[in-house]
Amino acid sequence: VTAAAAARPVVLIACQGVDTDAWLAALGRELPEAEVRVWPEAGDLAEITLAVVWRCPAGVLGRLPNLRGIFSLGAGVEAVLADPQLPASVPLVRLVDPGLATGMNEFVTMRVLHYHRDMDGYAADQRSHTWAPRAPPLPQDRRVGILGAGALGGLCARTLAGFGFDVASWSRSPRVIDGVRNYCGRDQLSDFLRRTEILVCLLPLTADTDGIINRRTLAELPRGAFLINVARGRHVVDEDLIEALDSGRLAAATLDVFREEPLPPQHPFWSHPKITVVPHISAVTQVATASRTVATNVRLLLAGCSVPDTVDRSRGY
Amino acid sequence: VTAAAAARPVVLIACQGVDTDAWLAALGRELPEAEVRVWPEAGDLAEITLAVVWRCPAGVLGRLPNLRGIFSLGAGVEAVLADPQLPASVPLVRLVDPGLATGMNEFVTMRVLHYHRDMDGYAADQRSHTWAPRAPPLPQDRRVGILGAGALGGLCARTLAGFGFDVASWSRSPRVIDGVRNYCGRDQLSDFLRRTEILVCLLPLTADTDGIINRRTLAELPRGAFLINVARGRHVVDEDLIEALDSGRLAAATLDVFREEPLPPQHPFWSHPKITVVPHISAVTQVATASRTVATNVRLLLAGCSVPDTVDRSRGY
Repeated sequence: VTAAAAARPVVLIACQGVDTDAWLAALGRELPEAEVRVWPEAGDLAEITLAVVWRCPAGVLGRLPNLRGIFSLGAGVEAVLADPQLPASVPLVRLVDPGLATGMNEFVTMRVLHYHRDMDGYAADQRSHTWAPRAPPLPQDRRVGILGAGALGGLCARTLAGFGFDVASWSRSPRVIDGVRNYCGRDQLSDFLRRTEILVCLLPLTADTDGIINRRTLAELPRGAFLINVARGRHVVDEDLIEALDSGRLAAATLDVFREEPLPPQHPFWSHPKITVVPHISAVTQVATASRTVATNVRLLLAGCSVPDTVDRSRGY
Repeated sequence: VTAAAAARPVVLIACQGVDTDAWLAALGRELPEAEVRVWPEAGDLAEITLAVVWRCPAGVLGRLPNLRGIFSLGAGVEAVLADPQLPASVPLVRLVDPGLATGMNEFVTMRVLHYHRDMDGYAADQRSHTWAPRAPPLPQDRRVGILGAGALGGLCARTLAGFGFDVASWSRSPRVIDGVRNYCGRDQLSDFLRRTEILVCLLPLTADTDGIINRRTLAELPRGAFLINVARGRHVVDEDLIEALDSGRLAAATLDVFREEPLPPQHPFWSHPKITVVPHISAVTQVATASRTVATNVRLLLAGCSVPDTVDRSRGY
């Protein structure tokens, strides 16, 4: 092995449920200075310096002695952090990709507008051939609340504020978004919920946010509120959500994420008349844009620069 | 009658199907210098100088000898122009209201995003408890076309371009909208249609645009295109639309406007599986904002200034 070859970074794609051929081609193109391998054809594990992961097979990361960085292909990294063999001192970088953010912004805007304009009510009218126009509230009289004010929550909040909605965000620590009122910490969660007619969940999944949408918090929303969960299934307590819909506390919910995915065929969400189920497609990592983001982050890390969206393990995102 | 009283403008609200009490209160508030009356309690018709109209009872306008201006409460004025007793020389002003534009922008954005993200496909999957994620095209690879590039079409085109869609507009005469390619005149209609995957109709209804969405023009759209008609029912040839949906030429349509409104209960649109019917609610004239716009236009007209959105009767809008 020559010195030049030894210096060449070796990237291991260790993913399940993604098109690894497409990622191999894209990273080969975006990172020509690196050698890219795909698990399980990993060769000498001591040569691997960088790992690109999504539903990474258990234990792989613990077997890479010279690993310098781990790059997630998603914005949520709770599954990576749950790996007991995750090396403690290797930086873990989340994917905050423009393609992902674009998709999330589209989906959240669409569903907020859908509920704002009572499209489910008009669909029911159509089934009975009923012509019953209703004036919608002006957007400034419609209170939207975003749980989470990071890259995705911030973008959605700004877009919805641009449509004229009365938007607030809730986050762990204070966050400033133009035109959006921020509530922060557990102390202000009740005030945030009590004002929120359309609730969007874009939180990271951590010990603090696990099950945050439950009987108690749903009861603080105004009667007839709407929920859009595009974060993680574990944010929602399934039985409490169904109870809130059945009691009329919540008018309807759009769910993109579930405790078990694929959502099992017999799960009651599928056939609940007030629930719209979509199969984790609100924001899809797009190889074309995400491979560029990963390549940029790899180069920053190898150059010893600080990498945006490096996970703070103590807070979990 | 004193000179002061004689000089006081008298506004007649001559409307059907709107809340005339709300309009009386709002115009009284916004135009304190005027006297406001509601048809049929019009008093001496020779005193009326200004008319505010929506589905104006036939013949009323022809009986007002001292009329100086007519203010429509909608953006489309084809019904006013169809009144054979419409005074030929009195300015007619369309309503281009921020509240109306806001609602249209919400509705068009929502439905473009709905089709872009294949929400009808996912609804079908939900009915069969099928988990089948599909990556949507990036917005820059989705071609949206807006028929009409006026106040409403221009606003929607800019919003959709802001989401990153590849947006074009088509208009009678050339129109410049930032980031939007303009096609104009009948000569360029085919080129516009051939590129358009999601077609939005926001045209005024004139002799030129009556029936513009017909078998011939629908056949120029790429297979599997979508239609959103939020202009007038007469823009669409109903049977041709159903044929295009049944043949698969069109994938789906959202219709807010109809040749006969309310849409008759036995009309085939109600139960067509590919058609979403809403009861003319895409943009609702909001009394709070529209009364301010009307008051501003009344004052401009009385001051002898040019009034924006005065109808050019030769072109019909």
